[in-house]
Amino acid sequence: MKKTDTLRSDIAWSSLDKIVVHGNDLVNDLMGKVNFGDMAFLSVARRLPSPQESAVFNAMLVTLVEHGLVPSTLAARMTHAGAPEAMQASVAAGLLGLGSVFVGSTKNAANMLQQAWRSAPAGASATELAQAIVAEHRVARQIIPGIGHPVHRNGDPRARKLFELAQANGFHGKHVELMVAVADAAHAATGKHLPVNATGAIGALCCEMDLGLDVAGGIGIMARAVGLVGHIMEESHQPMALQIWNRVDEEATEHMKHA
Amino acid sequence: MKKTDTLRSDIAWSSLDKIVVHGNDLVNDLMGKVNFGDMAFLSVARRLPSPQESAVFNAMLVTLVEHGLVPSTLAARMTHAGAPEAMQASVAAGLLGLGSVFVGSTKNAANMLQQAWRSAPAGASATELAQAIVAEHRVARQIIPGIGHPVHRNGDPRARKLFELAQANGFHGKHVELMVAVADAAHAATGKHLPVNATGAIGALCCEMDLGLDVAGGIGIMARAVGLVGHIMEESHQPMALQIWNRVDEEATEHMKHA
Amino acid sequence: MKKTDTLRSDIAWSSLDKIVVHGNDLVNDLMGKVNFGDMAFLSVARRLPSPQESAVFNAMLVTLVEHGLVPSTLAARMTHAGAPEAMQASVAAGLLGLGSVFVGSTKNAANMLQQAWRSAPAGASATELAQAIVAEHRVARQIIPGIGHPVHRNGDPRARKLFELAQANGFHGKHVELMVAVADAAHAATGKHLPVNATGAIGALCCEMDLGLDVAGGIGIMARAVGLVGHIMEESHQPMALQIWNRVDEEATEHMKHA
Amino acid sequence: MKKTDTLRSDIAWSSLDKIVVHGNDLVNDLMGKVNFGDMAFLSVARRLPSPQESAVFNAMLVTLVEHGLVPSTLAARMTHAGAPEAMQASVAAGLLGLGSVFVGSTKNAANMLQQAWRSAPAGASATELAQAIVAEHRVARQIIPGIGHPVHRNGDPRARKLFELAQANGFHGKHVELMVAVADAAHAATGKHLPVNATGAIGALCCEMDLGLDVAGGIGIMARAVGLVGHIMEESHQPMALQIWNRVDEEATEHMKHA
Repeated sequence: MKKTDTLRSDIAWSSLDKIVVHGNDLVNDLMGKVNFGDMAFLSVARRLPSPQESAVFNAMLVTLVEHGLVPSTLAARMTHAGAPEAMQASVAAGLLGLGSVFVGSTKNAANMLQQAWRSAPAGASATELAQAIVAEHRVARQIIPGIGHPVHRNGDPRARKLFELAQANGFHGKHVELMVAVADAAHAATGKHLPVNATGAIGALCCEMDLGLDVAGGIGIMARAVGLVGHIMEESHQPMALQIWNRVDEEATEHMKHA
Repeated sequence: MKKTDTLRSDIAWSSLDKIVVHGNDLVNDLMGKVNFGDMAFLSVARRLPSPQESAVFNAMLVTLVEHGLVPSTLAARMTHAGAPEAMQASVAAGLLGLGSVFVGSTKNAANMLQQAWRSAPAGASATELAQAIVAEHRVARQIIPGIGHPVHRNGDPRARKLFELAQANGFHGKHVELMVAVADAAHAATGKHLPVNATGAIGALCCEMDLGLDVAGGIGIMARAVGLVGHIMEESHQPMALQIWNRVDEEATEHMKHA
Repeated sequence: MKKTDTLRSDIAWSSLDKIVVHGNDLVNDLMGKVNFGDMAFLSVARRLPSPQESAVFNAMLVTLVEHGLVPSTLAARMTHAGAPEAMQASVAAGLLGLGSVFVGSTKNAANMLQQAWRSAPAGASATELAQAIVAEHRVARQIIPGIGHPVHRNGDPRARKLFELAQANGFHGKHVELMVAVADAAHAATGKHLPVNATGAIGALCCEMDLGLDVAGGIGIMARAVGLVGHIMEESHQPMALQIWNRVDEEATEHMKHA
Repeated sequence: MKKTDTLRSDIAWSSLDKIVVHGNDLVNDLMGKVNFGDMAFLSVARRLPSPQESAVFNAMLVTLVEHGLVPSTLAARMTHAGAPEAMQASVAAGLLGLGSVFVGSTKNAANMLQQAWRSAPAGASATELAQAIVAEHRVARQIIPGIGHPVHRNGDPRARKLFELAQANGFHGKHVELMVAVADAAHAATGKHLPVNATGAIGALCCEMDLGLDVAGGIGIMARAVGLVGHIMEESHQPMALQIWNRVDEEATEHMKHA
């Protein structure tokens, strides 16, 4: 058997009296010593965070836990109505909608920022890169990831706070700068107010913290799994799924009944 | 429309410049102030934890994030092999196996402890209740939730640590006591060493912290979603799914090829 | 290695020029010769159906494909709104709600009928068994699976048709008889009209065709996967998910905005 | 409320004594009259198939039901090991891997064929278009969808059979022609034998039958849901998931135990 054919994982192992996760003794080094967000950092970065990384990464996760009633929480509640005995199925149903439209933009924003700096001509400024990004997206009639919000039109307060925390912890850098410059360039080009939103800020911070594009996608999934458990708990004692079903079915099929 | 027919959620709302989660201003009260585990506590308890609750609840979550290569992480990796573009689908596939066999035992343990104390005759001791629990399960030939472990036969170090942290933070009480007594009674009745395991400890602590049975089930889901992201990231740069597939297919279908 | 430790599947294998499924050459024996319902029968019964079995089994599947707008189709549509690029994720989200409340009743009905005849005293009639079933469920305050329907109060036309087809194809027997007797006994005991519904009829027919309880559960899953694809296709060109979201969010969170 | 804000579905409705699916009375027009494959056609084409369409569409579905032990069936079996009580969750887990790698190629093949003919210069032949397709994919270093197979290197017998059935039923046309020409051109350009595979044939037939790209993706999902139920039934009486888990865990983590 060739070496490449062997199975290998470097995440965790256990023995009679010990569990080791990325080189850390779970019981003696992690439980009671690090918080859940640090453990999430360990899962994706394969090392524990510095205090500064811990502060910013926990804030990024906290930002995305709860969005109220959105399509993914409604999918979870609908699933609960049919399978209340299987909470894991409802959470999974809720996660399945975290695709290109909502959560995908975090990864897309990170990718846009990373690519722009990687292929930037020597001496290019964030402003110049941002103008090029906006121009390219307009020509291709593509949505620019990470900017604009249907509710927080005057600026997404979560993005502002994340950038503040990044500054305070040493993670303000060229990717944050470029993200802000993209929002400004989009405003200048369109006349519309398109502030950096939470996914844009998190995408930029994933770049500053050198976490990679997969983490930019994974953060939303980890955070929403937490929020979905809360929604399913509310649905179980204060349900809305069946009422929504009845209303939707009645309205959407009425035209056929009278055909 | 009757009041019961209206839709109502008490979790979160947002306006032009504000997002409120269970009464807390997300940007000013939560981001940068509470950690991801505290946010998980807020999601399920609908209030922020005390420092003691935060310590124990974060430790419970940290305990369950990572179990190495288990059926649920393998399901996630198999899914990634077919749909690498959809990380949310791989995490969801991994969560779907968190049913009665593995994670369900946390909820079952919590339920067993709660029921026993609720229906206990006045003055009954934990030892007496434990003996009755063990006897009932043996008659019904049912597995007792929360005890025994295939690897950690001399005691699950995670359970010991969780009980230590509970003690240090004021959450040692009659449910922990009963869980330990059940393990002792099972040992006495069967001669087998069946120590309290991590799910038993977490089930007992959910009772001590008054978190309810749904939380006992939800904790494992929240924690594993985090660990699954880490497994999918490893699978994407150091894959094993296709190699496992090839080996399994070859071995399991060979008998038909020669029939 | 012990025999029980080897991996073995008896479903399918392939070679350079051949694919064999449960002993049938896929290309020469199945494609173009059997229909999709027969293939479903082959998957669960591990043999091809007789013409009579084919007629009834196809009808059972056809019955369950489409239920219009129900919680599971709404979960699928909500998922599509977030991840339109991953149709498999939307179908999966829709399937996840096929738990105890809606589809589970097919399996429960089949189980109820099978158990009743297995433990019946010699010479017991369907009427007697039905009365005992109804009495037991009323004492335990449990819902009797397979009877009653919120819309088809005068009798579920699908159940009538399935029983007709069963009769015409030689599958009318004691399980169908008992299912009908249960509906009659429930009517007599409660005064309410509780006719056999589609899940009750399908559960009874799974018993008559000797297909086992897992098939009773699996039929609904296979059929609904087909219907869900149709709903996602409609959602992609005539969407409702975002409109439902907006309405629900507005109504359900308004009370907090004025608090 | 604007017209676009109303909810509307045209799939199905029901009343006291009737269920109507895409204009057909379920009980009187469909049950016992059409097979499961015809019902699948109705779901995606919104009309019943002609006898010729029925023959080819059923064969397309039959082709994709069963692929033996592949990553998606292994994901389903792994899920069953943890949640045997929730068959729907195991089927869903299996479907989640039907993404870009395996099933996605059907849709990609259909798209490639459709685009090529749509943008073809007047008088272009299938051979010319095929050469252009192959050249473009080689320049972009992209895999050409619909050709090549790791096992059926001398030609995928399913593709041959599907094209035969298409010919016999009047669905041989320019898309089938182009798919075959692409395989020939790829062979000429690379020297490798890259015959049309099952997904290429099904993609081409979706174009010939005017079913649209979403159907090309949906066929695989509908068919695999059926096959997955069969795998879960086998897993429940002849399990392999736990044995695979034990082997994988032992091999893949051994290097850490000796570190």
